[in-house]
Amino acid sequence: MKLLSFAFILICGVAFAQNSPIKTFVSNQDNQHRWLNEYAEFLSIPNVLGDSINMLRNANRISEMLSKLGIKSELLYSGKYKSAPSVFGEIKVPGATTTIAFYAHYDGQPVNPKQWAEGLAPFTPALFTDRLDQGGKKIPFPTAVEKINPQWRLYGRASSDDKAGVFAIITAYEALLKTGSKPTVNMKFFFEGEEEAGSINLDEIFKRNKEKLNADLWVICDGPRHISGKKQIVFGVRGDVNVDLKVYASKRPLHSGNYGNWAPNPGMRLAQLLSSMKDAEGNVLIKAFYDDVTPLTALEKQAIAKIPEVETILKEDLLLAKPDGGGKSFIELLTLPTLNINGMQSGNVGTMASNVIPTEASAVLDLRLVLGNEVNRQVQKVVDHVALQGYTVIDHEPTDAERKQFPLLAKLTKRKGGYNAQRTTMDLPLAQKVAKAIETTIPYEVVKVPSAGGSLPLFLFEQLIDGKPITVPIVNYDNNQHAENENVKLEYLWEGIETMAAIMQLK
Amino acid sequence: MKLLSFAFILICGVAFAQNSPIKTFVSNQDNQHRWLNEYAEFLSIPNVLGDSINMLRNANRISEMLSKLGIKSELLYSGKYKSAPSVFGEIKVPGATTTIAFYAHYDGQPVNPKQWAEGLAPFTPALFTDRLDQGGKKIPFPTAVEKINPQWRLYGRASSDDKAGVFAIITAYEALLKTGSKPTVNMKFFFEGEEEAGSINLDEIFKRNKEKLNADLWVICDGPRHISGKKQIVFGVRGDVNVDLKVYASKRPLHSGNYGNWAPNPGMRLAQLLSSMKDAEGNVLIKAFYDDVTPLTALEKQAIAKIPEVETILKEDLLLAKPDGGGKSFIELLTLPTLNINGMQSGNVGTMASNVIPTEASAVLDLRLVLGNEVNRQVQKVVDHVALQGYTVIDHEPTDAERKQFPLLAKLTKRKGGYNAQRTTMDLPLAQKVAKAIETTIPYEVVKVPSAGGSLPLFLFEQLIDGKPITVPIVNYDNNQHAENENVKLEYLWEGIETMAAIMQLK
Repeated sequence: MKLLSFAFILICGVAFAQNSPIKTFVSNQDNQHRWLNEYAEFLSIPNVLGDSINMLRNANRISEMLSKLGIKSELLYSGKYKSAPSVFGEIKVPGATTTIAFYAHYDGQPVNPKQWAEGLAPFTPALFTDRLDQGGKKIPFPTAVEKINPQWRLYGRASSDDKAGVFAIITAYEALLKTGSKPTVNMKFFFEGEEEAGSINLDEIFKRNKEKLNADLWVICDGPRHISGKKQIVFGVRGDVNVDLKVYASKRPLHSGNYGNWAPNPGMRLAQLLSSMKDAEGNVLIKAFYDDVTPLTALEKQAIAKIPEVETILKEDLLLAKPDGGGKSFIELLTLPTLNINGMQSGNVGTMASNVIPTEASAVLDLRLVLGNEVNRQVQKVVDHVALQGYTVIDHEPTDAERKQFPLLAKLTKRKGGYNAQRTTMDLPLAQKVAKAIETTIPYEVVKVPSAGGSLPLFLFEQLIDGKPITVPIVNYDNNQHAENENVKLEYLWEGIETMAAIMQLK
Repeated sequence: MKLLSFAFILICGVAFAQNSPIKTFVSNQDNQHRWLNEYAEFLSIPNVLGDSINMLRNANRISEMLSKLGIKSELLYSGKYKSAPSVFGEIKVPGATTTIAFYAHYDGQPVNPKQWAEGLAPFTPALFTDRLDQGGKKIPFPTAVEKINPQWRLYGRASSDDKAGVFAIITAYEALLKTGSKPTVNMKFFFEGEEEAGSINLDEIFKRNKEKLNADLWVICDGPRHISGKKQIVFGVRGDVNVDLKVYASKRPLHSGNYGNWAPNPGMRLAQLLSSMKDAEGNVLIKAFYDDVTPLTALEKQAIAKIPEVETILKEDLLLAKPDGGGKSFIELLTLPTLNINGMQSGNVGTMASNVIPTEASAVLDLRLVLGNEVNRQVQKVVDHVALQGYTVIDHEPTDAERKQFPLLAKLTKRKGGYNAQRTTMDLPLAQKVAKAIETTIPYEVVKVPSAGGSLPLFLFEQLIDGKPITVPIVNYDNNQHAENENVKLEYLWEGIETMAAIMQLK
């Protein structure tokens, strides 16, 4: 087995270095003690958007971290009131001809401290022996002589999403510096402060700093490693747009006895309309829904074939007997557009329900887009489908005249925002080099995912700064991202430093 | 035309008396002035269940009204804590062999004073020149010399539903007394105080007073006259039962991007399940749904054919371009069982919507029953239908093991309460006599409706006191029953006295 592995590694032209200087440096207990304390202190600065003073404290702390390593930094502002700045730093490496920009964000999701487990608070980082819901016990921060267990978890808001990215990127450069390892590329650091609010001002910051943010590749350090635990590179994201849909019945709510069978029920109308959009396996039945999807490239298909199976883990974790998709793999399904019912409502359920025929029924749809889809065209497909079901589609509350004239009325409106998918080609030479660099830190092939299921406005990188983004996530999958009890497994944090350091030394 | 009408009346054996002593007495301005003031005072006593002191004040006021006419009354209690009593009175008429019991209720629907129009309060009766939303102006109560306009409306809670019934029944007997008109039947008066709460203690009161409440016919004076404005007799009510339905997906809410296309959406499942229950015209597709419906009798069909058309009025009023029912008439549709979605919900709509795949979706169904249907059998039809769609139907929140085992899980539970339909045969001789009696007060045939669309626990009359109920409503259709700004048109109130007086003199 060992021989075979070795042969495989040679064929791939990649050397997994079991004892590289970086690995040794990262394993060093003194370093880990210092990092653990520094990182916990960093996490203790609240980072929820709107708390402008603390957002600035976070940005300044990052500037200090860079400054300690001899990197001059500056804060980039959008110019909008209360907008949190991005932190920018740059390292020019003599002889380097390639520039890689590293991205992470320092803001975190809003918190509801009441939802956090006993003994936990979002901005009071706490150490546990294991995952809280799997028997983990709270322990004090270790003394200098106590060995740090890589299975320990550090709990706190943004411990994974995404101060881990900020920490790993900067610490990777520290590891290079202190081990005398030479970076092979020029580096730019860009740490955003408004990602969780939808990067609302990123476009403005990009427009103001196009020259400064020029790079050959953007490494986005955000999100978790593959569900299997393997390191991965994600080459794209889906786009996203929301649609509000409302159907109508009588103008006044009616007694369900006095009018039942004669007066149409808007909930039933909505149910019939929604159910016309998907079959029992979740395939979208809307005409031309999949027609403009850019087919997967051969390379993407090959990559997908190599991605470890995750369905078994997910079905067990989510208690799902049978997923949608008619047998297509999880990852393949993420490369297709979606139509999801975020919410639907008519009348009341539970104790507030009454024997009434309501006047209207509403749904909010979430349309995820893939390469080839276009926001307005995707919304139009839904409009056309609703019209095909006999509805008169309007973009306003119906007038009395419209109610009298049209048997079936649907209001359909696109919500503000919404953007297309972004995908970076998997055969981009520089991305291949990043993959190989990461593979020097692991005894297996890095998982290459054509597109994540989720959405990020990565199109902004392409459109506004000619950037080619790829995502290299480092944290554990079960980190409770966006929710209460967010955490990071220390093993993943340390390995994240190695990952980023390897990219800085790509060949 | 006159000759023809006269001929018709002779053929029917009924004489519409344009100037009967009762009509003259009811038209008398002194009487109307007195009644208007007395009725307004009666309405000013709050009558919402739970307000025990005022409920008792109402009951005592009714006893006084009876007492003034020489009728001894008593309060019938259910024995339950805070239960409002029913008021019972009786008149034995020498020589009479038939006993008619008159029913009305003195409690009203709960009120939210804030919802009432400016200048109106639920228990401060106010007089208007016309319907409030049709240009009606508030006017002071008239002085003794001012003529009372029958188009005026009296606003206040229970002005129509159902103190109007109490008032008309008692005042009808006053009219008989004071005009020297002889009643032809023994009479019982029964005024309930808990109808709006679902007659929750009526069974107990019936059980305790079976002998006392023995009668050949029960005249239920509740609800509005026919939408066309004509007087009507309603021979039955639909039954009613509510069902809670919930379907499930993953146990945790999921990111709609990260899992979209793979994780099933519970809202879509519910939409598909609900839409399988009805076709586009509102016909229920559940197996055997209509199979046990007792067919309409020839008499009922004849009666239906004679009922004035109401669709035109309703479509205009409710701004409905096309009703359900595939062309069946409004009244025919009320003789069929219903399946109505009172409410449905999954996730959130509006500003609270987020890009999530919710964990579950719920609906509350209202099943109206007609003659032949049985509550438990009707619910079972829905259970069977859900199972036929591939669902495992459970009556509890699913366990983890059930979630893992069954691809489709639906929780379906019948709500407490629920009762069958009741219908009194239209050829009941005494009911025919009531119809003829009413027709002495009108120049047209009384509208005979086999069944109302709504539900009342009239089966209690049949089951517990061997009663045969028919409903004789007196108030205007547009009275805002159960809602804010409840009102009664004085013309209908006066005509209601005539209707009840005629029944007391039936031949």
